[in-house]
Amino acid sequence: MNIFVVGIGLIGGSFVKDVKAKIPDTIVYGIDANAAHLEEALSLGLIDMKASYEDLSLADFVMVSIPVDVMLQELPKILDRVPETCVVCDAGSTKELICEVLNDHPKRRNFLACHPIAGTEFSGPSAAIHGLYDGKTNIICEVEKTAFTLQEKALELFQLLGMRIRYMNPKAHDKHIAYVSHLSHISSFMLGKTVIEKERNERDIFDMAGSGFESTVRLAKSSPAMWTPIFKQNKENVIETLEEYIQNLTEFKELLEKDDYEGIYNEMNNTNKIKAILSGLPATKKPKANTLNQK
Amino acid sequence: MNIFVVGIGLIGGSFVKDVKAKIPDTIVYGIDANAAHLEEALSLGLIDMKASYEDLSLADFVMVSIPVDVMLQELPKILDRVPETCVVCDAGSTKELICEVLNDHPKRRNFLACHPIAGTEFSGPSAAIHGLYDGKTNIICEVEKTAFTLQEKALELFQLLGMRIRYMNPKAHDKHIAYVSHLSHISSFMLGKTVIEKERNERDIFDMAGSGFESTVRLAKSSPAMWTPIFKQNKENVIETLEEYIQNLTEFKELLEKDDYEGIYNEMNNTNKIKAILSGLPATKKPKANTLNQK
Repeated sequence: MNIFVVGIGLIGGSFVKDVKAKIPDTIVYGIDANAAHLEEALSLGLIDMKASYEDLSLADFVMVSIPVDVMLQELPKILDRVPETCVVCDAGSTKELICEVLNDHPKRRNFLACHPIAGTEFSGPSAAIHGLYDGKTNIICEVEKTAFTLQEKALELFQLLGMRIRYMNPKAHDKHIAYVSHLSHISSFMLGKTVIEKERNERDIFDMAGSGFESTVRLAKSSPAMWTPIFKQNKENVIETLEEYIQNLTEFKELLEKDDYEGIYNEMNNTNKIKAILSGLPATKKPKANTLNQK
Repeated sequence: MNIFVVGIGLIGGSFVKDVKAKIPDTIVYGIDANAAHLEEALSLGLIDMKASYEDLSLADFVMVSIPVDVMLQELPKILDRVPETCVVCDAGSTKELICEVLNDHPKRRNFLACHPIAGTEFSGPSAAIHGLYDGKTNIICEVEKTAFTLQEKALELFQLLGMRIRYMNPKAHDKHIAYVSHLSHISSFMLGKTVIEKERNERDIFDMAGSGFESTVRLAKSSPAMWTPIFKQNKENVIETLEEYIQNLTEFKELLEKDDYEGIYNEMNNTNKIKAILSGLPATKKPKANTLNQK
């Protein structure tokens, strides 16, 4: 099988690392605007050879893992060049605009809109790791617009990597993901900013911060180049989550100002049920069969 | 050595677990208002026997790890009962009020005000783990008010457990810790609340949340009984951090509303330097000799 990865960083690199481990005769072709990344991917053994769009006629499967703004320009060009038997998947954290842009593309049936809920705060080819997708959810949008044999081809690969599949429409995806992913990133970035502004002496943070602080600001290490276009494409949903989050923080502050400690206790106690929700995540999350759960 | 633990949960339990491993002939006495916790600590082998305040005359070292409001009532009573050779340490996340309350106690020299920056989101005796303190910072306040031989006795034990020591005045402690710990907890609780309110269908969170969400809401599993009195005692500092955090979130939202994506990129890029700060935390943080660094 010939797999092409367009954008060979954490997401694309981890993907092919596991595919090669599971299907050893896979040949991985890398395409990347960043020549240094492409070279690095080659020397790390993530890809077997460098390639360009001209080579896409050889592709059986294309994984596109590039910033979501670049995705809008590049996906149509990639689709233009792949053969009828090839399935092109993206890994973007937004789905509505990407699906909209490709809606009338003559090769729309060769495209499968995906969002594998997997990642770390690191980026680039050297961040690629084995097992990143194992037990994680892959959200697929507008599955009915993809040719059935190509759906099957892609699902087989995702399931081989241990992924659970969930179907959703692009609008619902973008709304939900604003809450469970995009808001977490902003909360983390702004928490990091608040502390850095105050603690000009970095030694104080270093000395006093524990694992709790580290956990809440971990996402503030994420790539601005990747996240700026995500916030842009999901602007309305993100603003809505931010308004609700700011409102909840303001109410908590007001309880404190009013010395309403029973209220503060209750706020925390009610949120403690997140324990039960998180206990299903992600270590205990098992790959599921392809259950259709369209919403 | 006879060690008494008053409040045998995550903090006290992990402490004696390591002390017993390092000094096998230690006898650990447990005192706890919660009879079930005391029984559990005994059956887990965290303590050798149950005890009461009457037994404190036998104590060489007392670790007090109870909610900070209860601390204000109990620490004076504990100090009343210990012999001259005993050092009493607390593990409270606030220091100003505790130091103030004990300032004129006749046995003030037997007390060492401590805040080991260690913990997890879990609580109770079953949450106690080996190595919790290894490589972590222990902030000691008003060290000059503790008898020198008792300082030495306590430091020897802390260093045996692999802790770094840092000295600070209680006011500075409470101000700094509001930023690097207390704010993280509120940000996490309110993030959890925002998502739970919106995602009434918990299945959606379960399916869509990744490790990023889990990391930012991990602290929302923390104990409300422990955290309510911390926020109460550190009210002014916590309100200040919350105001700055809300302000930063609001500015981010305004950049998004104005479509100022260069501004959004810069906000994230400037905060990325948290990477370098966190790289010192905590895996690579090495125990240091007892360096005096009073501020």
